[in-house]
Amino acid sequence: MATLPPAPTPENDPRVKAVFDDIRATRGGDFINNFWRYTAFDPALLEEVWRDVKAVTATPTALDPLTKEMIYVAVSIANACTYCIHSHTAAARAKGMTEAQYADLLRVVSTAARTNHLVTAMQVPIDPVFDADSEEGV
Amino acid sequence: MATLPPAPTPENDPRVKAVFDDIRATRGGDFINNFWRYTAFDPALLEEVWRDVKAVTATPTALDPLTKEMIYVAVSIANACTYCIHSHTAAARAKGMTEAQYADLLRVVSTAARTNHLVTAMQVPIDPVFDADSEEGV
Amino acid sequence: MATLPPAPTPENDPRVKAVFDDIRATRGGDFINNFWRYTAFDPALLEEVWRDVKAVTATPTALDPLTKEMIYVAVSIANACTYCIHSHTAAARAKGMTEAQYADLLRVVSTAARTNHLVTAMQVPIDPVFDADSEEGV
Amino acid sequence: MATLPPAPTPENDPRVKAVFDDIRATRGGDFINNFWRYTAFDPALLEEVWRDVKAVTATPTALDPLTKEMIYVAVSIANACTYCIHSHTAAARAKGMTEAQYADLLRVVSTAARTNHLVTAMQVPIDPVFDADSEEGV
Amino acid sequence: MATLPPAPTPENDPRVKAVFDDIRATRGGDFINNFWRYTAFDPALLEEVWRDVKAVTATPTALDPLTKEMIYVAVSIANACTYCIHSHTAAARAKGMTEAQYADLLRVVSTAARTNHLVTAMQVPIDPVFDADSEEGV
Amino acid sequence: MATLPPAPTPENDPRVKAVFDDIRATRGGDFINNFWRYTAFDPALLEEVWRDVKAVTATPTALDPLTKEMIYVAVSIANACTYCIHSHTAAARAKGMTEAQYADLLRVVSTAARTNHLVTAMQVPIDPVFDADSEEGV
Repeated sequence: MATLPPAPTPENDPRVKAVFDDIRATRGGDFINNFWRYTAFDPALLEEVWRDVKAVTATPTALDPLTKEMIYVAVSIANACTYCIHSHTAAARAKGMTEAQYADLLRVVSTAARTNHLVTAMQVPIDPVFDADSEEGV
Repeated sequence: MATLPPAPTPENDPRVKAVFDDIRATRGGDFINNFWRYTAFDPALLEEVWRDVKAVTATPTALDPLTKEMIYVAVSIANACTYCIHSHTAAARAKGMTEAQYADLLRVVSTAARTNHLVTAMQVPIDPVFDADSEEGV
Repeated sequence: MATLPPAPTPENDPRVKAVFDDIRATRGGDFINNFWRYTAFDPALLEEVWRDVKAVTATPTALDPLTKEMIYVAVSIANACTYCIHSHTAAARAKGMTEAQYADLLRVVSTAARTNHLVTAMQVPIDPVFDADSEEGV
Repeated sequence: MATLPPAPTPENDPRVKAVFDDIRATRGGDFINNFWRYTAFDPALLEEVWRDVKAVTATPTALDPLTKEMIYVAVSIANACTYCIHSHTAAARAKGMTEAQYADLLRVVSTAARTNHLVTAMQVPIDPVFDADSEEGV
Repeated sequence: MATLPPAPTPENDPRVKAVFDDIRATRGGDFINNFWRYTAFDPALLEEVWRDVKAVTATPTALDPLTKEMIYVAVSIANACTYCIHSHTAAARAKGMTEAQYADLLRVVSTAARTNHLVTAMQVPIDPVFDADSEEGV
Repeated sequence: MATLPPAPTPENDPRVKAVFDDIRATRGGDFINNFWRYTAFDPALLEEVWRDVKAVTATPTALDPLTKEMIYVAVSIANACTYCIHSHTAAARAKGMTEAQYADLLRVVSTAARTNHLVTAMQVPIDPVFDADSEEGV
């Protein structure tokens, strides 16, 4: 149950078709998942979001693709985004994440959440040594 | 400004001293940062939290130490924990994170936040292909 | 699946009936949506919450009704409240929100989420010019 | 105190200078606030983020500029982004937000947070009438 | 540094004065903390919020005052509200919270955060036995 | 629909069996809810998380069991963890929470959310009297 219906034939719009074609070419497959099908209701928004996501997940950068997917999953968990958790956990597995790595991801995420809440509760003052912005450096 | 004062001589308590000694031995340095000094007001809580954190950051597991630190930073950002962001960004740098990797981390975290909010806004239905729990598998 | 059952005949309680009648009169329709039917398990809570919501959505104030509904949707997205997203997106449409305005709402919300996470990640210091509380003003 | 130092002369990089010049031209003023100065450590990230923000705040779209700023503020509050709250509240005032409109914004945001938490607590089932994705429509 | 200045003489407004007088009478003291002084910029908002807060913290209800304050602190931590954490932790202490109870509060909050993130990560299906809304009951 | 399948016979692993047996002995019943069945995919993670949860919910501490469950529910609501809300609300009822206490819990949680967002919006400065970390005390 979504807040809007998916367009029945989104690729009749040439801007949508161009993005969908680029998604297919980038990923090497025909499947277009629901996120893109629903975002296609506004072609300009679709273009902007695909450009952002492509820059992250489909472009070679300093971090390897699996690391980036696991970071994506971690943020999606903290933001409680059910769909994103499903789609990016599946993507991480498709990029080679083992069950041992998945367990590790969950261990880090859940422990971080624990100490995040504990630190916030006590309002622990920041140690001066962590100040990357100071003149004396870290 | 914290919600409680740091103990002036926390290591007078032998349970606190044991944890602080283990932190020093594990990290190979004398410095005990404020998080542990404040948590020391309750030795049992200190022991529990250090055990959790040690299992994540000081134990060889399926993911390498830098990847784990960057995931820790990502969750801390999403949970808006200022102290945690400072301490774990510093730790990631100490474990070798380059500025290019840091830029990549920020790119993934901020793009994930964007699509998290967009997906949640539209309540996009989950594609059946993402269902790891189904009998037919992914 | 809720954490409590809806009352089968909530309007047997005169305090509930009074609130439901006011909701119907204010909105000009008979329909009482589930939020109110579930909150009715505690008549005092129902009264308090309706008073707050009525002050926002059913009272002429400085902002027009559609703007207020869109702000309501934005907060509900950021707080990941599925029911609220559905009910207030429907209410915004009922108050005239076009698809172009909806796309704009999603564009602002998702871009704000992106820069929120980026700013929090870098802990950007606040420019003095933004200080509305200073003696010299903005 | 930030997690990285601001570049001392960011505009020595021609990509940074191009973005900063576009910010100045778009806004009609010389001031570059800290968010852009810190993001400038990675020119590609700066370009991507400015493109997203420009599409939202500096481009005529279906919603008027003040409405978009107030939605930006609302999301920033829900995400607890201190810097963003300051910068976008100042921007909303610069675009004409009155104190009465500001009070209204706070009224909507805080009431939405109240009902968000209440609905999530009770896990209220979604009324079928809100289903925009169903065949029968709303 | 706030987004608005505190009113220099808020009690010149009779509606503000009436609320401040009720706060003083309810709490048995002269001190008005900053939250109320800043909210006073809009007397109607001040009245609404004080009515909500008074119903929670200053009215005898099913839960005792200290339990309510600790729940208030727990929510404030999860929402990362620095001011609220300080003011309600101080209020809990004023109502008798011991350091052992505070440690317990932090233990519950931080462990809940850990399992919250873990459950959300795995998207654990809800056991039918938890369904309070089903015909067969729990 | 979860991100991983539950193990068909998790107790074939002796470490899992030991934890499940301890859960049964601690709770005085045979039922193992889904959270533990899914976490069992990684026996080390299961052990760590059960140790944390047992320290909170199954060990006599300064706070009584019902108060701890209600705090657990409050955090789960603020973190929007659907499963956790269901399981811990059921647990609170099993420990004696009345409907009047439940209404009170919801009243506190939702009012806290309201003031959390309002305070964050205005960035209210912390009153010096709340500073537990200062030399002069509160």
